[in-house]
Amino acid sequence: MTAPSLIPASTSPGRHDLPGGTAVRLALVPGEPAGIGPELCVRLAQQPRDYGLIAFADGRSLLAAAAALGLPLRLTDAAAPDGGPGTLALVDVPNASPPEFGHPDPRNAAAVIDALHRAAAGCLQGQFDGLVTGPVHKAVINDGGIAYTGTTELLASQAGCEVVMMLANPDLRVALATTHLPLRAVADAITPDGLTRTLRITHAALRRDFGIVDPVVAVLGLNPHAGEAGHLGREEIEVIEPVLALLRAEGMRLVGPLPADTAFLPAKLSGLDAVLAMYHDQGLPVLKFSGFEQAVNLTLGLPYPRVAVDHGTALELAGHGTADPSSLFAAARTCAQMAEQRRRAGHAAPR
Amino acid sequence: MTAPSLIPASTSPGRHDLPGGTAVRLALVPGEPAGIGPELCVRLAQQPRDYGLIAFADGRSLLAAAAALGLPLRLTDAAAPDGGPGTLALVDVPNASPPEFGHPDPRNAAAVIDALHRAAAGCLQGQFDGLVTGPVHKAVINDGGIAYTGTTELLASQAGCEVVMMLANPDLRVALATTHLPLRAVADAITPDGLTRTLRITHAALRRDFGIVDPVVAVLGLNPHAGEAGHLGREEIEVIEPVLALLRAEGMRLVGPLPADTAFLPAKLSGLDAVLAMYHDQGLPVLKFSGFEQAVNLTLGLPYPRVAVDHGTALELAGHGTADPSSLFAAARTCAQMAEQRRRAGHAAPR
Repeated sequence: MTAPSLIPASTSPGRHDLPGGTAVRLALVPGEPAGIGPELCVRLAQQPRDYGLIAFADGRSLLAAAAALGLPLRLTDAAAPDGGPGTLALVDVPNASPPEFGHPDPRNAAAVIDALHRAAAGCLQGQFDGLVTGPVHKAVINDGGIAYTGTTELLASQAGCEVVMMLANPDLRVALATTHLPLRAVADAITPDGLTRTLRITHAALRRDFGIVDPVVAVLGLNPHAGEAGHLGREEIEVIEPVLALLRAEGMRLVGPLPADTAFLPAKLSGLDAVLAMYHDQGLPVLKFSGFEQAVNLTLGLPYPRVAVDHGTALELAGHGTADPSSLFAAARTCAQMAEQRRRAGHAAPR
Repeated sequence: MTAPSLIPASTSPGRHDLPGGTAVRLALVPGEPAGIGPELCVRLAQQPRDYGLIAFADGRSLLAAAAALGLPLRLTDAAAPDGGPGTLALVDVPNASPPEFGHPDPRNAAAVIDALHRAAAGCLQGQFDGLVTGPVHKAVINDGGIAYTGTTELLASQAGCEVVMMLANPDLRVALATTHLPLRAVADAITPDGLTRTLRITHAALRRDFGIVDPVVAVLGLNPHAGEAGHLGREEIEVIEPVLALLRAEGMRLVGPLPADTAFLPAKLSGLDAVLAMYHDQGLPVLKFSGFEQAVNLTLGLPYPRVAVDHGTALELAGHGTADPSSLFAAARTCAQMAEQRRRAGHAAPR
């Protein structure tokens, strides 16, 4: 990861060089309406952009957030050309009850999920080139009577495919072999089949979404010191190394299994395109430490690029205008770059 | 951890302000003679120092390292006053066979372990004020017929006490509730009794060795998102929180259990004196990422301060003079500061 950019500058020429000459169009879902999602979307709408932006949200909620922040916002028709800064194209998905900043209402859970489903459906149908999502409040959705474990899982289920969660900032990409599992369940969840699929998805996404022709992925060990030759656990020998050998034989460039504690040293990261951590707290503390504000959450393996913010609903900040919009800005920029990359690759070599 | 210093400057006045007016004396053990330990000690010996330094090592090995690096080294009598830069007081612990850079010889394992034992015995007897150690090659020691799991364990056993491993750099201190365990064994190793002892040792060391009157320690959860209210594991609720409640009732200032992925964000670290991670790869990647060269390995809970380098024997670098001595320099400086702090506290209030 020598180049401090998710997309090398040379492969990100902007809309005018794209096949067809038209900008990519991104679906935007603010998430929980009582959190900071709506105001972050209002802030994003103020920014110059070289991609189209179509919000799936309750229009009144967005206007209320704009009013609270004293920012202009004109909601436009989703079918019309993008109006640029100060505007946001809207597919209205009305809330059941007017949201109050900081106080989520389970009655609005259905609208939050509906917005996600409709935006994703539009992506699956090719109406949009990517999906950008704000923070959702998991407990409130469940309190609203909707079984929901996470937006990543919802989108994977809707698309009918397996996905990989990746967190990225401008310096580092970390994919996860397991995500939200109790620690004691992690070791048994690292299986040859699962690890193979995770690496295939990650590798394919680095090629397709990031334009990296021959990606290099570092794979961490499961145990401290990557098992120290079997003295501190045998999963490296029995599971990880055989998977790496298999995929290397197919031509994949894989490094590891590496001890996690030293894998993130700058000298070790040089030349790598991503790190695959075996579990959540092995990979994410250093990723967030190294650049939290710019960090985004990618879902790899979907038929479209999906990028989310890397933070929660921050209910205590909602409506105050103090929430940092950097992660949503980075999510939109990253999603646009990935969509542009897919479109270029699609013209150069049909998928 | 607002002040980027392991010891606040105001509490580190140097030898002349110490009770008795004499400098602290540190025992120094280079570790594996075929690795970079001897040459790092030679480099350390060149530095100005306001503490005494007594090496427990094979004198010929140190002189060979000095010759390889083209640096002056005069070995002096261990009973004489410290000779300053370019000299090193020596307690000779001869190797069985002349070491060859890069090629460890199991026949020298006994001398490596003997040096550690004798230096530690001197600390336990009050002849020295602290112990600084270079890297040992675990497999070579075992190949030499000596059961050895690590220097930390050896010193704890010799002193007959429980210890806590802490990694520190100038910005961050991370203690570990478990150390070198297979990941699948970690959850069951986090027990109320063990966690209580770990926190007591860590808290006492922050007071005694670092002069922090009322330390604040952040405790990480075991599971991702610190268990997310039991949805991702129950150890936070059943083990960690009760221990924290018990110790808080005794007046200990403890934060947590915190989600590991966000606990290391600068805003979260502000005001904290240490972070207790539940396991190796939860705490050490970010510690090493945030300042590997300056990182040192502390053993808390011994009757004397012990600080080690935070790297291995680097056999491939030995004898070339290119190995970075920063960690050994930091280890010696940190150990001297801890010893000075203990001596001051010992005069102010007898232990």
